[in-house]
Amino acid sequence: MKVTIIGLGLIGGSIAIDLRKSGLATELAGIDLNPAHTKKAIELGLVDKSESEDKAIATSDLIILAIPVSALSQLIPFILEGVKKTAVVIDTGSTKSSICRAALHHAHRSQFVAAHQIAGTENSGPEAAFSGLFRNKTNIICEREKSSEHALTVAEKVFDALGLNTIFMEPEEHDKHVAYVSHLSHVSSFLLGQTVLDIERDEKNIFALAGSGFSSTVRLAKSSPDMWAPIFEQNAEYLSQALLEYIMHLQKFQYHLMKRDGKELHKIMMEANQIRRVLNGIDASASISINSKLTNRQIIKSTN
Amino acid sequence: MKVTIIGLGLIGGSIAIDLRKSGLATELAGIDLNPAHTKKAIELGLVDKSESEDKAIATSDLIILAIPVSALSQLIPFILEGVKKTAVVIDTGSTKSSICRAALHHAHRSQFVAAHQIAGTENSGPEAAFSGLFRNKTNIICEREKSSEHALTVAEKVFDALGLNTIFMEPEEHDKHVAYVSHLSHVSSFLLGQTVLDIERDEKNIFALAGSGFSSTVRLAKSSPDMWAPIFEQNAEYLSQALLEYIMHLQKFQYHLMKRDGKELHKIMMEANQIRRVLNGIDASASISINSKLTNRQIIKSTN
Repeated sequence: MKVTIIGLGLIGGSIAIDLRKSGLATELAGIDLNPAHTKKAIELGLVDKSESEDKAIATSDLIILAIPVSALSQLIPFILEGVKKTAVVIDTGSTKSSICRAALHHAHRSQFVAAHQIAGTENSGPEAAFSGLFRNKTNIICEREKSSEHALTVAEKVFDALGLNTIFMEPEEHDKHVAYVSHLSHVSSFLLGQTVLDIERDEKNIFALAGSGFSSTVRLAKSSPDMWAPIFEQNAEYLSQALLEYIMHLQKFQYHLMKRDGKELHKIMMEANQIRRVLNGIDASASISINSKLTNRQIIKSTN
Repeated sequence: MKVTIIGLGLIGGSIAIDLRKSGLATELAGIDLNPAHTKKAIELGLVDKSESEDKAIATSDLIILAIPVSALSQLIPFILEGVKKTAVVIDTGSTKSSICRAALHHAHRSQFVAAHQIAGTENSGPEAAFSGLFRNKTNIICEREKSSEHALTVAEKVFDALGLNTIFMEPEEHDKHVAYVSHLSHVSSFLLGQTVLDIERDEKNIFALAGSGFSSTVRLAKSSPDMWAPIFEQNAEYLSQALLEYIMHLQKFQYHLMKRDGKELHKIMMEANQIRRVLNGIDASASISINSKLTNRQIIKSTN
């Protein structure tokens, strides 16, 4: 099967590696707006070659879109316009309402599978790509009923090759949930980094006192602004709501802190400790927590 | 040398392991208010035995205090009162102004070394202790000039055995810096956990969408409230200041988000990306960053 990957960064590159490894992709073309990325991806053997967008789209059996979400919504109608009748298009965007709206009334909507694989690192570019990035991670398909059975069958093979566990959600539900459990984490980390860097201007040597706890909390502040700015913009409503709730909790904490109310601070932290139960679920088998929780949703396949 | 460890949790237990390993401690007594901790620490071989506080204090050459900071300030005068003339007392507290004030006018102040080892995990209790917790981590001694040369020599042996790199700071300077690079991270993580758990009440299955980024950012929310409530209370002024600045940055971000000002969001994230330079410093050799940065402070010894 000829596969074209549009967007040769961490996500697109890692998909390319595992699609080739699994034997699913026998021919791999790559396209990236950044010529240095394209060159690097070919050098690294992530893809075999680069092609013009028109040619690649018209001749591929499978097209994977791994570009910023703002570009996704703009590009999807044109891509669906140019594909072969049997081709399947899968996206990887971290927001789903916008792209689903952009594809909704297209004559070839059924060839498209709107998906989001919950995986990534704070690194970006083709050099950051690696095999196994998606293993045992969660994948969400939105508007399943709008994809053809053929498209879903091909997508299932792709997600199996990557080792993903797939669940189904509506786009709005998806966007609301990721605002809390993914986008808010990123914002809190970006701004923690900014706050501490800000202080560093006046207080030299402050980082001599930073330990592994700081590194862990601020790790996501290294993430790519090119990727995240469009995600935050597209999910502004839900993320803003999450952010306001977070700020409210911080303000309450600060109030008890100024009152030296150790008892209340202790109580808040005891509540927060409950996150242990959740994290154990995330760190353990993703499929178990999904199986037990998502009783109303169908699981395509659990790979572990 | 007979060593008594007061407080047999992650920190006290890990110190015990490496002091025995290094041969520095030939006899190890342990004391903990929680009898289950004492029992477990003996079972695990972290310490040899438990003793009454009075006896242990009166007969030890070295006393390590690894208890919550509120207890430290209360206990330090009594401990200094009861020690042998040649004994040395070292603490491990994450705030330093309070204990330094509590010890300041004591007749035996010179037998005390006020220290803070920047190391830890989100786990607690004697079972969480392990060898190497302190290797290549930063240690801060406050009010060095108030400790005797003998006390500093013994302390240096202890910190060498643990693999720590020691720097010197004034207590207030220390407390201000850790407010930003340690305590604020913990608060941001605790309240991120609380915010998301709060939403979970209305939105089931939200955690099916949580990935490794969320785990990393919220890891510190698993930390012990018993340990952290007193630290936050003691460092309330500086932490509150840090928290207000963090909240201000979050509010500005939310404002740009609601205006869909992707350019401004991008700019903020680009600034935050600078944290990469800092984290590389932390992850690499701690001693190098300290050597190059802390030109005005003396380094006892760099262990790597």
